[in-house]
Amino acid sequence: MVNTREESDFIGKKQLPADALWGIHTARAVENFPISGQQVHPELIKAYGEVKLACAQTNNTLGFWGDKTKAEAIEKAAFEMSQGLLNEHIVVDALQGGAGTSTNMNVNEVLANRTLQILGKELGDYATISPLDDINLHQSTNDTYPTALKIAAIRLLRDLEQHVLNLQEAFQQKEKEFAHIVKIGRTQLQDAVLTTLGREMSAYAEAFNRDRWRIYKCEERLRVVNLGGTAIGTGLGAPKQFIFRVVDKLRENTNIGLARSENLIDGTQNADVFVEVSGILKACAVNLLKISNDLRLLSSGPHAGLREINLPQLQAGSSIMPGKVNPVIPEAVAQAAIKVMGNDQVVAQACSTGNLELNQFMPLIAHTFLESIDLLKNACKLFSERCVSGITANEEVCLMHVNNSTATITALIPKIGYDRCSEIIKLSENNGLSIKEAALKSGHLTADEFDQLITPEAVCRLGN
Amino acid sequence: MVNTREESDFIGKKQLPADALWGIHTARAVENFPISGQQVHPELIKAYGEVKLACAQTNNTLGFWGDKTKAEAIEKAAFEMSQGLLNEHIVVDALQGGAGTSTNMNVNEVLANRTLQILGKELGDYATISPLDDINLHQSTNDTYPTALKIAAIRLLRDLEQHVLNLQEAFQQKEKEFAHIVKIGRTQLQDAVLTTLGREMSAYAEAFNRDRWRIYKCEERLRVVNLGGTAIGTGLGAPKQFIFRVVDKLRENTNIGLARSENLIDGTQNADVFVEVSGILKACAVNLLKISNDLRLLSSGPHAGLREINLPQLQAGSSIMPGKVNPVIPEAVAQAAIKVMGNDQVVAQACSTGNLELNQFMPLIAHTFLESIDLLKNACKLFSERCVSGITANEEVCLMHVNNSTATITALIPKIGYDRCSEIIKLSENNGLSIKEAALKSGHLTADEFDQLITPEAVCRLGN
Amino acid sequence: MVNTREESDFIGKKQLPADALWGIHTARAVENFPISGQQVHPELIKAYGEVKLACAQTNNTLGFWGDKTKAEAIEKAAFEMSQGLLNEHIVVDALQGGAGTSTNMNVNEVLANRTLQILGKELGDYATISPLDDINLHQSTNDTYPTALKIAAIRLLRDLEQHVLNLQEAFQQKEKEFAHIVKIGRTQLQDAVLTTLGREMSAYAEAFNRDRWRIYKCEERLRVVNLGGTAIGTGLGAPKQFIFRVVDKLRENTNIGLARSENLIDGTQNADVFVEVSGILKACAVNLLKISNDLRLLSSGPHAGLREINLPQLQAGSSIMPGKVNPVIPEAVAQAAIKVMGNDQVVAQACSTGNLELNQFMPLIAHTFLESIDLLKNACKLFSERCVSGITANEEVCLMHVNNSTATITALIPKIGYDRCSEIIKLSENNGLSIKEAALKSGHLTADEFDQLITPEAVCRLGN
Amino acid sequence: MVNTREESDFIGKKQLPADALWGIHTARAVENFPISGQQVHPELIKAYGEVKLACAQTNNTLGFWGDKTKAEAIEKAAFEMSQGLLNEHIVVDALQGGAGTSTNMNVNEVLANRTLQILGKELGDYATISPLDDINLHQSTNDTYPTALKIAAIRLLRDLEQHVLNLQEAFQQKEKEFAHIVKIGRTQLQDAVLTTLGREMSAYAEAFNRDRWRIYKCEERLRVVNLGGTAIGTGLGAPKQFIFRVVDKLRENTNIGLARSENLIDGTQNADVFVEVSGILKACAVNLLKISNDLRLLSSGPHAGLREINLPQLQAGSSIMPGKVNPVIPEAVAQAAIKVMGNDQVVAQACSTGNLELNQFMPLIAHTFLESIDLLKNACKLFSERCVSGITANEEVCLMHVNNSTATITALIPKIGYDRCSEIIKLSENNGLSIKEAALKSGHLTADEFDQLITPEAVCRLGN
Repeated sequence: MVNTREESDFIGKKQLPADALWGIHTARAVENFPISGQQVHPELIKAYGEVKLACAQTNNTLGFWGDKTKAEAIEKAAFEMSQGLLNEHIVVDALQGGAGTSTNMNVNEVLANRTLQILGKELGDYATISPLDDINLHQSTNDTYPTALKIAAIRLLRDLEQHVLNLQEAFQQKEKEFAHIVKIGRTQLQDAVLTTLGREMSAYAEAFNRDRWRIYKCEERLRVVNLGGTAIGTGLGAPKQFIFRVVDKLRENTNIGLARSENLIDGTQNADVFVEVSGILKACAVNLLKISNDLRLLSSGPHAGLREINLPQLQAGSSIMPGKVNPVIPEAVAQAAIKVMGNDQVVAQACSTGNLELNQFMPLIAHTFLESIDLLKNACKLFSERCVSGITANEEVCLMHVNNSTATITALIPKIGYDRCSEIIKLSENNGLSIKEAALKSGHLTADEFDQLITPEAVCRLGN
Repeated sequence: MVNTREESDFIGKKQLPADALWGIHTARAVENFPISGQQVHPELIKAYGEVKLACAQTNNTLGFWGDKTKAEAIEKAAFEMSQGLLNEHIVVDALQGGAGTSTNMNVNEVLANRTLQILGKELGDYATISPLDDINLHQSTNDTYPTALKIAAIRLLRDLEQHVLNLQEAFQQKEKEFAHIVKIGRTQLQDAVLTTLGREMSAYAEAFNRDRWRIYKCEERLRVVNLGGTAIGTGLGAPKQFIFRVVDKLRENTNIGLARSENLIDGTQNADVFVEVSGILKACAVNLLKISNDLRLLSSGPHAGLREINLPQLQAGSSIMPGKVNPVIPEAVAQAAIKVMGNDQVVAQACSTGNLELNQFMPLIAHTFLESIDLLKNACKLFSERCVSGITANEEVCLMHVNNSTATITALIPKIGYDRCSEIIKLSENNGLSIKEAALKSGHLTADEFDQLITPEAVCRLGN
Repeated sequence: MVNTREESDFIGKKQLPADALWGIHTARAVENFPISGQQVHPELIKAYGEVKLACAQTNNTLGFWGDKTKAEAIEKAAFEMSQGLLNEHIVVDALQGGAGTSTNMNVNEVLANRTLQILGKELGDYATISPLDDINLHQSTNDTYPTALKIAAIRLLRDLEQHVLNLQEAFQQKEKEFAHIVKIGRTQLQDAVLTTLGREMSAYAEAFNRDRWRIYKCEERLRVVNLGGTAIGTGLGAPKQFIFRVVDKLRENTNIGLARSENLIDGTQNADVFVEVSGILKACAVNLLKISNDLRLLSSGPHAGLREINLPQLQAGSSIMPGKVNPVIPEAVAQAAIKVMGNDQVVAQACSTGNLELNQFMPLIAHTFLESIDLLKNACKLFSERCVSGITANEEVCLMHVNNSTATITALIPKIGYDRCSEIIKLSENNGLSIKEAALKSGHLTADEFDQLITPEAVCRLGN
Repeated sequence: MVNTREESDFIGKKQLPADALWGIHTARAVENFPISGQQVHPELIKAYGEVKLACAQTNNTLGFWGDKTKAEAIEKAAFEMSQGLLNEHIVVDALQGGAGTSTNMNVNEVLANRTLQILGKELGDYATISPLDDINLHQSTNDTYPTALKIAAIRLLRDLEQHVLNLQEAFQQKEKEFAHIVKIGRTQLQDAVLTTLGREMSAYAEAFNRDRWRIYKCEERLRVVNLGGTAIGTGLGAPKQFIFRVVDKLRENTNIGLARSENLIDGTQNADVFVEVSGILKACAVNLLKISNDLRLLSSGPHAGLREINLPQLQAGSSIMPGKVNPVIPEAVAQAAIKVMGNDQVVAQACSTGNLELNQFMPLIAHTFLESIDLLKNACKLFSERCVSGITANEEVCLMHVNNSTATITALIPKIGYDRCSEIIKLSENNGLSIKEAALKSGHLTADEFDQLITPEAVCRLGN
């Protein structure tokens, strides 16, 4: 038999586990929303702690709680939440209905009860510390939730940016390492003109450089918050002094350049900034998908593929064919990328279906948006650490392709002209010779001259 | 200090917790794929147990394990997995790279070690029971994984079908309950012609009736499996007798009408059937989104909205405005629906990017596809039990709208003609009268005649 | 100076070109909706003609027009529209606002004026023939538009089915043609086990066989129409006899098994059937994308690629590298497929955002849905006629891969066992020998025995 | 009988209409790609003319054509194309396979033949003016096509920005006009707290302000071009002087701040910038969809809806209910928005599936991306000119809602406290009084005091 305590609300009474830090609203929400089975994102909980802390401090400064002890206890509880120490007590489903009210109330109840614990009072003694009148004082779900979401997103994006940078640098390392390896460049999957393996890596590095920069710029899109606007952005129920000070306090605490939205009505109802940033995340996903696919192609083989590079061998690939090595990291990266692309649609559709003064689908937006950042972060980390940094080149295969492919002829044209090149191609086709063999046999080029035209320097020189 | 045991593979040695049922492949996969933080779907694990059981039984019958004790122990282990008793030991990330190999190997290792336990042997004694040579005998990831996925999906879909049916019935109940309430029908959100609240509910019931039927028909799309095809559908490595018998055994065990694909090559590489069924799930999501949105509109208010119906009050809605009741269940349902729509894109894109003899993104397809079924199931359950069944009507509001709206005039035209109706509209507009008042004042209709034209029977009669 | 005639409506008067068959509503709609620049789909116009013809005939039969001459003239005009002779006069934008009212009114006005022409009357003489009171008699946009859309869709789908069948047969032809060519099968783009080029083609044929069947089954999903339901499905304004007869007449005329929806309220507001069928189209797009991508991979080269097949050479590929042949048809097919996948999202989102008694986004649904069918039809036609039917095999490349790849060793295991196979692999790696050379050198197999193990029959035999 | 001329290529000979400005490559492409039936976007053709002009001028300056007359004729032809005078001769399908080669060749052939016309030569006399050796000199499809696309996009985006600004200003106008109208603000479609109609309009204006800024910033994302990189970004076949000068010339001519990509390899293969900008367009679409939906809600009625605003009446709405006015412009805007959201998925998926040195799906990317800009431009224009600027308010309805709704009570709390407010609510509910009536009856407030608490100033004051 479990010990219980009773709480009540305007719907009725309810027995709760006696030691639960959450209360009756949370209990009802848990019953109402067995929908995704997923928890509220831990960074969102921590950021909510930061929001509650700044509100408590501001209320304290403005003297809304005469009682210093109470104020300090509330602040301590909120600080604990901001450090992730209370995550396990936020038990409502991530996809709850209702714009985030259940998350906010779960937070309020946990902080009230944790404050009561700190004060040595009974759990549920809301006459002493009230989830609504104390913890939620001068706030609404509708301003605290989006504010917490933006803080969580900024924290995660900073981390993501670092991992994108690491990935970029991993490719730049390969750019240097493979600078001397001439190979066939392909357009439309057909042999086209010569390039180097280093240049290929540089193109990937450059793509992630753009991603890094874009992700870095997201912070300025997200730093405008609607805290202080309460229910719909008019600030109803909050004193002017509170509204003017609370974002400053939050900025100070978080060390993020937060600013209060100039139009709080707009800031409360329009969620387009999440669409914008999700679109930036999608651009990163698109690069990850394109490039992981390229690596799968380039490492295809080991015999009947392009086999120009080798990926690190991380695990056995097949029970039937011993020694088979599969490109599992690019595959995992690609899957994450496809999921982020799907998530972007979810975010956009949810943002587009907000009604009037509020977007009622904030929990879906929040959960999906933060999941996308996580997925990209994990994918970039995996990709750089377990795949890209360990790529090795099959130089001899690259060279063999160069010597064999008619694409190589394009490197000879500037030297010996189109007609002699056509002659070499015919010689190659008619006699089953490689392009190099045919070129030498034609007498138009010595082996040395041929080799000079396909040096990395010759191939990478911009223009003729 | 934790006790460990050592295992090795062709990459090298590794220390594992001594009591882990999983082995070195799983350990490497866990390190390689910290990507989504989500677990393999429990129904997929259970279905994998069923697949392994059928394989073990078939191998046993065909005498591939002389040893009866060994055979029975393997079957016992597989049976335990099929009952969900080993779920906690499947620890690889749901979005692992590699077409499901890591899930299959995690299953193989857990079953091998569980068999060793049953036999009273040491964990890791793979000379006695081998994950590959025994548990995976005559199988490949590429035939077992999709087969298990289809079984899991069919099980979940059967459950979903029941919940869609419940939802349909909940609306049918309301159809009867509200059959007598005449109200304004709206097109393009503008007052149009009269209908009844019961007819509105019937349209929702009918939509879910289609969904139910469609979901029911999915089973025949999914019941064709490629078990026996091994790596690419040629059955390489499996004896003919095994291939011919194993699906029969599986059908017998599962009580699902499974059949072996006539073209196992196709069955191994083409994943379009998941796109097809995911599209069916999306159609259900579209109905849920449309209809939950309608309920949000119809219950908008309590004063400045349409307020024709009331949704059950499940939790306090607002900290600022006491007594505010929000449509949280339709909101949760809508969120699930939007997510399923996004998941459909993920499934389709993943299926479209398979290469040659295999779709390398099976883990993403499986996880997303099963998540969609879960979300719909939970959404339908919530919707019927916590929302639809408790809807009440605001009859007086419906009637007031009928008496006031110019849309009602359309019900009078067949009786008194277009010109007199125009006269009534003018009378109403010029004198600030309701339509009913104007109609009576015009002298063209008595109150009784007016009321006769707007009875439920009159409104619902098909044609004039 | 252009001759004009004047028309008026409740908004005011307007000058129209004197010879325009369309009238003032169309003129306003053209001004109101310069949005996509695209025309209403010609099949939708023709199907609208069929709907109007059936309505006119039914009204005639029921004696709603005493005047036989008038009735026959209206029927003649509607028949002309059903034959596509009046397409050019439907000038409203395909993405007009308003559930299709502008298309219906454009149709009504054109038919009224065309009828007037037939009767030898002045254009615009609506006292004689009225777009609303005659042409639209007993109808609404909300029942005629979806009905016409379904007829148009069924017609186009029948055509699509034939083209999918042709594509399937083109692959079946190649299946036979390439039955004898053994090659490396690849999983995760890595060499896996042996197969034949014919089997690869058969997998493609089988996928399109499923598509064909699915598309065939769509007709039964679309054949239920809401004609007779008028504005919201209550049939208001239409006589019972009309409602009961008009669908029969339409079925008779169209030779399509149309049936009246049993729940016309539902049939008017819920558009999920378009989501369902669009999902079927997407499954076909997914197969087209996967398979066109496979063909691009298999034909990659001509030297530094997989180069197992050749696609027909249809146009010069490059200005820089003469003789380069690009896989332009698979590329065009893939583009169409990606577009259809995007269209599916559009259709689903539009269907999900219908409100109450009507889906106000029918024009978007109709246009996007029909575009998808067209794109698939064109893609299938192109693919079979200009690409698949002309594929040739590079047998010697396939054989070279077989002789070289360690994947081939999997075919030897059943004969000589795992350990001797490992020995052969080492021999191959250490001495730079092909697998065949190493096998012979090992003494475990004669050349003849080796060749016997890699015959098409050996490779395709199901199981060992 | 049509006059013909004969042209030939490496595939064979072909008869063309004698007066066609396009040549054999175009003719083959037209046959190969009957896929979408849509034309290449006119702005893309014009921009291609600008690219060709800059190339011609640069080649001329560098003396590659000794012949001044020839050079001037080519420049004249290219200039004509840049002015849109040759659009009708670009006849290849917009969704052609092959990365844009067919568009480039159509352009080359038309410019060659137009040059021949200018020089008074025969059409098809490619010995005098060659599509490849003259018009395409030092170029490739792979650098000219993306460059032209970016120029076209920038031109269209500048135009779009202006229309978004106009829309923002139209809402700002309404913000002022409706500043004095107090109304109920709604969250989750439920009455929440007071606001003004002006503030609602201001939130819409602010959202479009963000869109305007974002669209303005797109130019800097698109202005980096890969012209000079030729086939894969190595500049093969182009002289260094040409590469260094051609972008300067193009910048000078276009008056757009174009710059050559620092990594031309990357610039040729990675298309993520289109994903990024398409995401920005999607954010605008999301705002359009949300806000058009809000206007549909606010104008719902005329009796049984929210009816707080009236939209301009642009056309008759219904054949059955005379005088019904539908929100057709918001509906058209919403449809365009949904289509842009679907297009974003198409762009992203196409960009993600590029392979190695080139994205082979550039025609799909280009067509879809430019279509999205067009749709948004048309939607914004329609929205501001035909809808927003004509919105009128139903002040009396807004006031009635304020006087009736319990939401209004939230405005009284700061003055008379929570308990007295609860008393007023009970009084209202028990006696069927409006909130205002109940407030006066309670004696806690005079009519004047009540009115003071719901003035626009009181409602809009930030905080209490």
